[in-house]
Amino acid sequence: MSLKVAVVVGNPKPASRTRKIAELLLEKLLDPGTFEAQVIDLADYTTEIFAWPSETMGALNAAVAESDLAIFASPTYKATYTGLLKAFLDRYPANGLAGVTAIPLHTGADFTHAMGPTFTLSPLLVELGATVPGRGFYLALSQMERVDEVLDAAVAEYAGNIRRVASLAGALRADIPAS
Amino acid sequence: MSLKVAVVVGNPKPASRTRKIAELLLEKLLDPGTFEAQVIDLADYTTEIFAWPSETMGALNAAVAESDLAIFASPTYKATYTGLLKAFLDRYPANGLAGVTAIPLHTGADFTHAMGPTFTLSPLLVELGATVPGRGFYLALSQMERVDEVLDAAVAEYAGNIRRVASLAGALRADIPAS
Amino acid sequence: MSLKVAVVVGNPKPASRTRKIAELLLEKLLDPGTFEAQVIDLADYTTEIFAWPSETMGALNAAVAESDLAIFASPTYKATYTGLLKAFLDRYPANGLAGVTAIPLHTGADFTHAMGPTFTLSPLLVELGATVPGRGFYLALSQMERVDEVLDAAVAEYAGNIRRVASLAGALRADIPAS
Amino acid sequence: MSLKVAVVVGNPKPASRTRKIAELLLEKLLDPGTFEAQVIDLADYTTEIFAWPSETMGALNAAVAESDLAIFASPTYKATYTGLLKAFLDRYPANGLAGVTAIPLHTGADFTHAMGPTFTLSPLLVELGATVPGRGFYLALSQMERVDEVLDAAVAEYAGNIRRVASLAGALRADIPAS
Repeated sequence: MSLKVAVVVGNPKPASRTRKIAELLLEKLLDPGTFEAQVIDLADYTTEIFAWPSETMGALNAAVAESDLAIFASPTYKATYTGLLKAFLDRYPANGLAGVTAIPLHTGADFTHAMGPTFTLSPLLVELGATVPGRGFYLALSQMERVDEVLDAAVAEYAGNIRRVASLAGALRADIPAS
Repeated sequence: MSLKVAVVVGNPKPASRTRKIAELLLEKLLDPGTFEAQVIDLADYTTEIFAWPSETMGALNAAVAESDLAIFASPTYKATYTGLLKAFLDRYPANGLAGVTAIPLHTGADFTHAMGPTFTLSPLLVELGATVPGRGFYLALSQMERVDEVLDAAVAEYAGNIRRVASLAGALRADIPAS
Repeated sequence: MSLKVAVVVGNPKPASRTRKIAELLLEKLLDPGTFEAQVIDLADYTTEIFAWPSETMGALNAAVAESDLAIFASPTYKATYTGLLKAFLDRYPANGLAGVTAIPLHTGADFTHAMGPTFTLSPLLVELGATVPGRGFYLALSQMERVDEVLDAAVAEYAGNIRRVASLAGALRADIPAS
Repeated sequence: MSLKVAVVVGNPKPASRTRKIAELLLEKLLDPGTFEAQVIDLADYTTEIFAWPSETMGALNAAVAESDLAIFASPTYKATYTGLLKAFLDRYPANGLAGVTAIPLHTGADFTHAMGPTFTLSPLLVELGATVPGRGFYLALSQMERVDEVLDAAVAEYAGNIRRVASLAGALRADIPAS
């Protein structure tokens, strides 16, 4: 059975470099053919993002919540994730991303805000119930020429962590009910 | 082969309730017989914690870093984890908890600081490279009478997340090198 | 000369209770007749908030940046400030709130997310260069019946801190240039 | 009457560069002759920091709490302030730094952790009731050759903010009780 994967891009401008980086990370992490991916470029939904209720937004939220893996990608705005990405996440109920393995990803001009994905986006994803498999991913513009190398190092960390978590699954008590 | 598990307790007073809660969480999460657990009560090491180098502390740090699962438990001090727990984590090199699935756990007087494990301890553990499998665990004193129920709900979340991450392991690209 | 004051409300629904609480706090803090206040209810600008450039938004941003005091008020969404409020703050350049004394204010259902204004909104305002005069203000719905008492306690803290900062002003070196 | 000023240094090694930077910042900010400064190098108290009660530590805590201005200086450990500094702050009761204007200061190897003082130390100081007058101060080793220039820019920001807060003091309602 195919896995579900989502890439959520919080840049108010469409088809951003941030989106491209997130797609590359996904390509390097999972075996093609094992998953179906949906890319949600929130720039396409700025007129709908504050509507409540909204069938369109509800369907997007549901698709991400049902994903096995989701990459949440944002340019750095005021050291943190964008308001647009937050507005998307605001639509979830408590624990709305339970079961999703979530990778926080920020891009930025330089390293000044490199802590952003780990210290601002990762706790928000954890609050929503997601699993965060290691350090948030940050790419500075100055690293664009060696983006493959930077992504490869990150992917090795995520893959290593995912394998280690998997080794725990067999040791879980059998009598734990589904949450 | 047996899994390695660690419980690290950041209370400056030994044998605390915080330690007991962490041990209960472990007991409810993993099948007995599948793991060996080491409980590190940092109250026993306050005279050594700032010594550098220190064989004693180095051995403790290594034991936790090699664990498959670690629970980091702290009473709430100033809304966050204790300085004692931070002093233990400070001894790690960058990414020093890579491969460890880490559960942040705080206890507190009431719900005022319930965000602590998710918003202050979880990003620190992620910064160290650990995987955080969902929301941090918080227990308020007022919940002590129904501690089993509260722990059961949390354990169900962690178990669900761990199983879902495990489903990703088989889809990782085969050509990702070890990190 | 009259002071400038702004109240920025990040609730996607207009005329919210959060707005009312922020207005009450202002009323209790400053002497009427000493200031002119502008209340910006971001619910009125959801269709404009992601437009770039925007004269309307630019004028609002400027009004807040020129304020002596600003209250940033938000309901609690996912433990933190709303995406709508963040989208407004995202429009500032680096250090764009320098010189502004900024009070972070969240409202929430209960105390579970009481750390939000202090641990999530306050660092964002500090990152923008604002001065934060003590703990963020949080009001739980269960406190509505004694809202005056809760506000009075907070106002006493803010006033005390503001007076103490003022005592420092006379000791600043005379040769420090304007930033 | 003379102001009271404190510099608290959280480096486990005494007489650190971090301490020197904090002292330089103070020298550039306040007019000599207007204040008495106490420098607390926590490296001198590692054997006492977890003792409870402790007359020695109590006297140090009180000196800082009574200060008009305090600089809290730490090297970067795991992206954040040290456990040693946290252990000192842990000794305060709730709101224990009310009335203190507190400047968070981190030093680090490069800019990767430049967000540390603003996003990790500043909310902790605000939680303790202190006023934070703008962005936390961060110095990377690579900036050591132009440390005066970096400090001058920061001092200009802090002085500007302190003057602006002072302008608010006269507009506070006269009927606000002391907190």
